[in-house]
Amino acid sequence: MAQNSSRAPGRHFLQIPGPTPVPDRVLRAIDMPIIDHRGPEFAKMAKKALEGIKTIFKTSNPVIIYTATGTGAWEGALVNTLSPGDKVLMIETGQFATLWKKMAEKFDLQPEFIKTDWRVGADPAAIEAHLRQDTGKEIKAVCVVHNETSTGCASDIAAIRKAIDAAGHPALLMVDTISSLGSADYRHDEWGVDVAIGGAQKGLMLPPGMSFNALSPKALEAYKTSKLPKSFFDWADMINMNKVGFFPYTPATLMLGGLVESIGMLHEEGLDNVFARHDRLGEAVRRAVKHWGLEILCRDPKYYSSTVTAILLPDGHDADAFRGIALEHFNISYGASFGALAGKYFRIGHLGDTNDTTIMGALAATEMALSLAGVPHKKGGVQAAMDYLVSAHATPARVAAE
Amino acid sequence: MAQNSSRAPGRHFLQIPGPTPVPDRVLRAIDMPIIDHRGPEFAKMAKKALEGIKTIFKTSNPVIIYTATGTGAWEGALVNTLSPGDKVLMIETGQFATLWKKMAEKFDLQPEFIKTDWRVGADPAAIEAHLRQDTGKEIKAVCVVHNETSTGCASDIAAIRKAIDAAGHPALLMVDTISSLGSADYRHDEWGVDVAIGGAQKGLMLPPGMSFNALSPKALEAYKTSKLPKSFFDWADMINMNKVGFFPYTPATLMLGGLVESIGMLHEEGLDNVFARHDRLGEAVRRAVKHWGLEILCRDPKYYSSTVTAILLPDGHDADAFRGIALEHFNISYGASFGALAGKYFRIGHLGDTNDTTIMGALAATEMALSLAGVPHKKGGVQAAMDYLVSAHATPARVAAE
Amino acid sequence: MAQNSSRAPGRHFLQIPGPTPVPDRVLRAIDMPIIDHRGPEFAKMAKKALEGIKTIFKTSNPVIIYTATGTGAWEGALVNTLSPGDKVLMIETGQFATLWKKMAEKFDLQPEFIKTDWRVGADPAAIEAHLRQDTGKEIKAVCVVHNETSTGCASDIAAIRKAIDAAGHPALLMVDTISSLGSADYRHDEWGVDVAIGGAQKGLMLPPGMSFNALSPKALEAYKTSKLPKSFFDWADMINMNKVGFFPYTPATLMLGGLVESIGMLHEEGLDNVFARHDRLGEAVRRAVKHWGLEILCRDPKYYSSTVTAILLPDGHDADAFRGIALEHFNISYGASFGALAGKYFRIGHLGDTNDTTIMGALAATEMALSLAGVPHKKGGVQAAMDYLVSAHATPARVAAE
Amino acid sequence: MAQNSSRAPGRHFLQIPGPTPVPDRVLRAIDMPIIDHRGPEFAKMAKKALEGIKTIFKTSNPVIIYTATGTGAWEGALVNTLSPGDKVLMIETGQFATLWKKMAEKFDLQPEFIKTDWRVGADPAAIEAHLRQDTGKEIKAVCVVHNETSTGCASDIAAIRKAIDAAGHPALLMVDTISSLGSADYRHDEWGVDVAIGGAQKGLMLPPGMSFNALSPKALEAYKTSKLPKSFFDWADMINMNKVGFFPYTPATLMLGGLVESIGMLHEEGLDNVFARHDRLGEAVRRAVKHWGLEILCRDPKYYSSTVTAILLPDGHDADAFRGIALEHFNISYGASFGALAGKYFRIGHLGDTNDTTIMGALAATEMALSLAGVPHKKGGVQAAMDYLVSAHATPARVAAE
Repeated sequence: MAQNSSRAPGRHFLQIPGPTPVPDRVLRAIDMPIIDHRGPEFAKMAKKALEGIKTIFKTSNPVIIYTATGTGAWEGALVNTLSPGDKVLMIETGQFATLWKKMAEKFDLQPEFIKTDWRVGADPAAIEAHLRQDTGKEIKAVCVVHNETSTGCASDIAAIRKAIDAAGHPALLMVDTISSLGSADYRHDEWGVDVAIGGAQKGLMLPPGMSFNALSPKALEAYKTSKLPKSFFDWADMINMNKVGFFPYTPATLMLGGLVESIGMLHEEGLDNVFARHDRLGEAVRRAVKHWGLEILCRDPKYYSSTVTAILLPDGHDADAFRGIALEHFNISYGASFGALAGKYFRIGHLGDTNDTTIMGALAATEMALSLAGVPHKKGGVQAAMDYLVSAHATPARVAAE
Repeated sequence: MAQNSSRAPGRHFLQIPGPTPVPDRVLRAIDMPIIDHRGPEFAKMAKKALEGIKTIFKTSNPVIIYTATGTGAWEGALVNTLSPGDKVLMIETGQFATLWKKMAEKFDLQPEFIKTDWRVGADPAAIEAHLRQDTGKEIKAVCVVHNETSTGCASDIAAIRKAIDAAGHPALLMVDTISSLGSADYRHDEWGVDVAIGGAQKGLMLPPGMSFNALSPKALEAYKTSKLPKSFFDWADMINMNKVGFFPYTPATLMLGGLVESIGMLHEEGLDNVFARHDRLGEAVRRAVKHWGLEILCRDPKYYSSTVTAILLPDGHDADAFRGIALEHFNISYGASFGALAGKYFRIGHLGDTNDTTIMGALAATEMALSLAGVPHKKGGVQAAMDYLVSAHATPARVAAE
Repeated sequence: MAQNSSRAPGRHFLQIPGPTPVPDRVLRAIDMPIIDHRGPEFAKMAKKALEGIKTIFKTSNPVIIYTATGTGAWEGALVNTLSPGDKVLMIETGQFATLWKKMAEKFDLQPEFIKTDWRVGADPAAIEAHLRQDTGKEIKAVCVVHNETSTGCASDIAAIRKAIDAAGHPALLMVDTISSLGSADYRHDEWGVDVAIGGAQKGLMLPPGMSFNALSPKALEAYKTSKLPKSFFDWADMINMNKVGFFPYTPATLMLGGLVESIGMLHEEGLDNVFARHDRLGEAVRRAVKHWGLEILCRDPKYYSSTVTAILLPDGHDADAFRGIALEHFNISYGASFGALAGKYFRIGHLGDTNDTTIMGALAATEMALSLAGVPHKKGGVQAAMDYLVSAHATPARVAAE
Repeated sequence: MAQNSSRAPGRHFLQIPGPTPVPDRVLRAIDMPIIDHRGPEFAKMAKKALEGIKTIFKTSNPVIIYTATGTGAWEGALVNTLSPGDKVLMIETGQFATLWKKMAEKFDLQPEFIKTDWRVGADPAAIEAHLRQDTGKEIKAVCVVHNETSTGCASDIAAIRKAIDAAGHPALLMVDTISSLGSADYRHDEWGVDVAIGGAQKGLMLPPGMSFNALSPKALEAYKTSKLPKSFFDWADMINMNKVGFFPYTPATLMLGGLVESIGMLHEEGLDNVFARHDRLGEAVRRAVKHWGLEILCRDPKYYSSTVTAILLPDGHDADAFRGIALEHFNISYGASFGALAGKYFRIGHLGDTNDTTIMGALAATEMALSLAGVPHKKGGVQAAMDYLVSAHATPARVAAE
């Protein structure tokens, strides 16, 4: 549509699985004059942010706020707890799990990698089995991606905790919650996670540029013996300065104001309502995809993600070309594909500050783009999604906001 | 959906026929520090705005920029050209035409009102016939609403000009372009309009708070003999001060910056592309409505508006209740109904900074809300709209932007 | 400084007596998506604005909110209460009083004008004397500018009320509070004012584009018999629709959000603290001017304005050239001069969202620009202002915010 | 002044030496909808940012853009070029040099530290002498802070380059330009710097959250043999992906838009004009301080910084208490003090988007706060600064903007 014009009119439909659309309230809270990051007004705001983020992770332990994107928080998790040569157990749920494993190698860790075909989440039984074999307890950490953004497969963290316990293994449990936090239920303390990695730019509805490590007492214990070098991502100074509302070095002042606002918005809606909304929108998307006769990358419903759905195109159809057509005609962006299946699928993000009407617009654009791109599909996916949403709205199960 | 929450997540679908969604670029251009409205920087900006707005009206005559909404510009048109007791010919195309007539009465003008059932636009033949009967040429102005926002019926201004000429009548032609300007073709000079009334908050994509009078030499001549009192809306001081880039009294400084930005955006896209986009989206909406088996208020396709479609609900169904359900579940606002048909129809605005994907989201929300509200309709309207849009996008007729 | 550059670095010092610098909080509150101006969210906001603005005028009577600048509110005051041929008593305090008188003439009113040399406020004794002569009670309204922005002379409204009462005259009292409201004390009900005219862009810290009429029961009575034509500025529909949180025609939606924010900010600081701040800054400016040996236009201290100070340059020195030099070198704007003294003085605005440090920057820029422009003056004005402010801050008389 | 109020009216004077006030144009450029960080629009913007930042460093070599604050870029410089056990020569110019040294130790480097009393910059002769003694060429890098933010002492980088060359030493030259870049002249290629560390939040006028490494071919060579582990800060993937306008992981999308805007603003003004402005404002501040009879921390004029001035208070006067009084009464923030002199001095930042009038306001606030705090000083510092600025403006030496 924007063929000869430098301007694509109307609102862009940003259906990548994050960074997600930043609500105007959050953008405006960020669009404020800089304040002294060592003054009293800042300390008040920082304490509010530091306390608030705990309610999102559902933890009473400290949460580290990094001025860095999620990749930095991955690094923070590793360098603060481990030492060169340490074994870690990682599960190849997809591209991001693979990148995290590559990072571990860069830090001279020895990842053992449970392979998958990138079409399922992490299997607790496989983890348990693997740990049972580690009779010398050489594995120092189990690293799992809660919601694998690259594939739309989610993993059951509570079950993985149980698997580790069942194996009687002392390894730390590290969980990447980047594309689940603030969109799908995550319970740091209850599930016994030791280090969680979170990002601002997904369910927290902030621009990219901030990430998190939620800790456990055991993780803080591991810090003491960890020998990997660290400075920017070092927890100790951070925790110490945070106590009085400051940071050991200049933090992203304006982003902290945005974080306070976004946390407030999540609680205004009510976290359980937020999760139910994501579940509902995820199901609507899957109904459409199934009706079209296209294949969902995640091949087992028990791993379906509530925040992102990856869709395989039939052989001979280039998913990147499809995305280009959709962008050109319908002002919509999807997530790209990775790994062995690069070019074969695209991803619809349905997370963050979004709603039924937006997702229906996105699905309509998708169905129309499938036609324009000549991708074989059965019409009516949009109708199937609508039918589902009508039924979901007809029997509301909404709870009171907090 | 927002039953128990103070927050409706995601983007609101503002499908009222204006004020329309303000693009972020325009909002940010307005969100700027105040500058001295008598300083050199302001004069530069004001001249840019004053010249730019002429390109939207397609006129080489002066355009008056009021710090007032459209109602103020209606008043400006009347008080600057007419005298108490003057006869004016007005056409009852709907609510806004009726309000304009009431305003005329408040100013002691004598409106003659060509009645309609609010389901068609203005009929050039009826105007011609009426004027021919005015052998004393007592009618001083013919006042027409180009696009009646309350009904979704548009009128053919060029044909009305011809009708006036055919009647050999000297009356001024005044045209309300509030919900057409910047969305549907309007040619002030070519069509021989004497006073056009425009507003900022529709096709020009600005917040409400600014309106316009485009003039003709004949209108300026009429000013000289007009006896209605005027001050805030007086053209003379305005034209005089505008020549050097200033205003006779404090103007809405920030809105002028927004106006420069929005005019730039319309030209980036290309006015003809803008109009084609509105035509396409209007047709998509009508395809859906027709498929649903609902009645479009505008009963003659030749009057279909490209910017707003009014939809009648079947007897026994309250359109306001329907709007409430749609707002609650799908975060969407429609236009209300007026006059004899109040409560019987709702209006979908499809104008301003919008696009295919947004309108498809809105249509899906509408079809779902019809179900939730128990309004009888035939499913598949969304599909019909998609089918149309796919065909429209498959054969692009886009021209190069200016 | 910006000689060869298109960019003047740093913050502009906007020392015109309004529009004043809009605080970021207010600008951001305006920089928000448009909402349906006939929906429930809007009604809530509008009621908040309509109730809030009463607390600023200190009235329990209705306040009309116009989408227009102050000139429009002047017109609203006249056309809603008076009839053609009515006599009104006006006092020539300066440029704006003169413009208001010209407007009265345009509406066929018969202003009687108490002359001044533009260097004092309105004299209650002269008003009383004038009214006593009007034995036929033909004068229907006394129109006074509370704070004459063009000269920096303020008038004592309470005393004028007493003068009218002493004369036993039934005329309405109309007061222009445009550059005093929200900066200097104004008590609509207590002082017995019938119609007050206010603007958004001064003490209320909003961008220009909104203005007010505060009413009295007597003014509402006068409305019933008033014969001047009115529509855009008509009170009746406005009051009626406002009751349910709506407006008879599209209002400036976003500005209303800004108004709610700015009223909140005034109360956060506390109105009495706001007034004390303006008094203090006004005195600081006058101390500097007096030390420089320049003449304050307002020649009687009892009329000194707390929001704007006009400063005469010595003969042979062009105030406009001086303003140009200050703008070029020090990125500061002053108010221009008017009337018989045009070119002979400039005005420093010290109102709205400002503080001691900003005003000291402005005074330093002024003293430096006097040097660069070769205007004879005694150095040390900035020092005199600092000495005063130090003493004022050393003995705080601040009250608790509301 | 804000004793009993939650609101300090007017603009805050942020005179900390960074983060500096973000211009509205930059804040608004950041306050924009998120775009797909793997889409064509992003790639265009990223390339513009990546090319633009080179013009600020004056380099034709790659510049790495980190989503991290300056501390992260320090880490990037070390881990990409060095190996555990490497010796580095660092110069203790103040707090930040000391922190950088501590970081080096955390990475098992062996810093040799040339001590100072924190009241001078780095001495090229001392560096040369130190390097000459390193006959085994064990020192792998010389690390210097160009402008020590904690003390207001600047170092002559060109002279240090010559000193290294004179010693015939192959060590890399690493320079922290955090509080100089974009405010004081810095010539990466011409001065032969190997790794420069820059931050967004000072002369570049962005919010904190972005930092830079400018490289040299020699630095890229060192990368190949460097054995320190790295991932988030790793140059290789970054350079590779940047070539096509992308990043190896999600970057701070919105900040990149702000960077493009701020680079544009620096060139609009002209870099040489920017530097001259900083020189002028720095001198004005020093004139005031000297007149007050207070001591400038930097004890040798050849090291005076153009961006920040540290001011010692007389014995018995607590600089932090002074800062509190200034904040309370005059809405101004200064930089705090560090190290052995903590509590004894405060710092005035005069960098970034600022101008003469702002700095004069800040100096007036400072002189008034000195009085209120009972700090002995000779009145007239503000006058001395004004006298200097008048003379500077009377003989402009401005060059044409680029």
